[in-house]
Amino acid sequence: MTARYLLVAALFFTHVLSTVAQHTAPYKSTPSEVVTLASKILKEDRQIFIHVPKRDSSNLNKRFPVLYLMDGESHFDMLAQYADYLGRWDVEAIPPMIVVGIVNTKRTRDLTPTESITNYFGKPDTAAVSWMKPSGGNKAFLQFIRDELMPYVNTHYKTQPFSIFAGHSFGGLASVHCLLTQPNLFDAYIAVSPSFWWDNDYVLKLADKTLKPGTTLTKTIFYSDASEGVADNSTYHTNLLKFDALLTEHAPKGLSHQYKYYPAETHMTSPVVAYFDGLRFIFKDWKSR
Amino acid sequence: MTARYLLVAALFFTHVLSTVAQHTAPYKSTPSEVVTLASKILKEDRQIFIHVPKRDSSNLNKRFPVLYLMDGESHFDMLAQYADYLGRWDVEAIPPMIVVGIVNTKRTRDLTPTESITNYFGKPDTAAVSWMKPSGGNKAFLQFIRDELMPYVNTHYKTQPFSIFAGHSFGGLASVHCLLTQPNLFDAYIAVSPSFWWDNDYVLKLADKTLKPGTTLTKTIFYSDASEGVADNSTYHTNLLKFDALLTEHAPKGLSHQYKYYPAETHMTSPVVAYFDGLRFIFKDWKSR
Repeated sequence: MTARYLLVAALFFTHVLSTVAQHTAPYKSTPSEVVTLASKILKEDRQIFIHVPKRDSSNLNKRFPVLYLMDGESHFDMLAQYADYLGRWDVEAIPPMIVVGIVNTKRTRDLTPTESITNYFGKPDTAAVSWMKPSGGNKAFLQFIRDELMPYVNTHYKTQPFSIFAGHSFGGLASVHCLLTQPNLFDAYIAVSPSFWWDNDYVLKLADKTLKPGTTLTKTIFYSDASEGVADNSTYHTNLLKFDALLTEHAPKGLSHQYKYYPAETHMTSPVVAYFDGLRFIFKDWKSR
Repeated sequence: MTARYLLVAALFFTHVLSTVAQHTAPYKSTPSEVVTLASKILKEDRQIFIHVPKRDSSNLNKRFPVLYLMDGESHFDMLAQYADYLGRWDVEAIPPMIVVGIVNTKRTRDLTPTESITNYFGKPDTAAVSWMKPSGGNKAFLQFIRDELMPYVNTHYKTQPFSIFAGHSFGGLASVHCLLTQPNLFDAYIAVSPSFWWDNDYVLKLADKTLKPGTTLTKTIFYSDASEGVADNSTYHTNLLKFDALLTEHAPKGLSHQYKYYPAETHMTSPVVAYFDGLRFIFKDWKSR
């Protein structure tokens, strides 16, 4: 028994040794940077992840569109990978892009348009230490992007004057809020499962007031939702339908919009397909040659 | 004019300096390794990319399913990112996974089941230096995976006895070929736009012969195609429909299969959604808790 075991073990180790690695090295992907900006507007340091396309030795002065992404700590790897893959010479679905991921400090404060304690279930959140507090700082956050982040990125990287603002959940809400209040800050917007429920549908009502028929808004927006509304029987999905109907009926001149509903995906899986579909939509008319 | 220019320049630089980065550092993503294996079976060195889930300090002995991916140089970053994201505690669509990307040396040789010079258009490729030559080495390639790569991975990494074989185009063909000829090599298979056209639909005919009604095949397979067949008026799409009909009608016992058609995607963009949908399908019944 022991002899047999030793034989098996010997054969096993011989076999393993015969396919031993010659060499193991770290894998190198296109590198990204972490920049820390001292923001005077937000009165705090902000971490920014920045991914640039692979150096094109045939065109060192090439300039790139920029995707500004909220929730950098959550979705930066995904968007950096999409930028690399979809911009590859043999894929060519979008141009190679710079991806700027903004890392949260106080997420609710930065991404919500108003101060509110009305929670997802329409009830006041009265907890002493509420996740909803502080809120309503999106205007200051957009000012940080406009006056501090964008000048930094445009100074230090080879940017083209075409930029996208992309976010998920509260980030989706902030993306739509920016389109409504400062549309010229970006050229295109992606709002994945925007939290329209915030403050009794504040942004949805603002959209209805702002985007009157006859308005001109030469921008592109992609928005989506997943199973949220069905999973919890909330207004998540009906709010998206309302927003889509509003854009379709009021039909601002020049606005290119697409809505996708992913009933098989959850709040957290849908960004995988929605960011892909959003980029595909924004660059649908782009041709590399 | 000069004074005014200097004033503008001064204001500009003051502004830029006021938002200067305090600090720039390299971005760190979950690291991967490059292992070089000296294969006796293939008589050459093979580069393998290996991505392991983030170290879970609460469970250092945790073991993981393994995804073996063909065309490592093309799709490893994508699958490593999907494994990280979809396996995250707040996403939980799939278990955290090890991703093993096999880098090509002679792609046509390794991924095709037969020697053939009948090209995509059904004509003999008679070029002196044909991209189709050599071909027909998939059996040896699967032997390399079984007898050299898998033992290496199982020895050096914390693997679970659940593995997936995933490929695109010729890699999709190789994935189906493996399911038909060595089904027990893997537990689940992903075939994104498999090149069924190879050698006058060799693998499709083999499927018809192999998967007779009443056969037992307790495996999972996801397969898909995109606009290929429409774009070039070829049999690409009808071949996928035939394969799907065959699996549905012959209905091997225990076989779980899903087919997705992405008419809006190209041969090169569809892997983004197909690999995601494939992983979602394979782990549809997986629960983390």
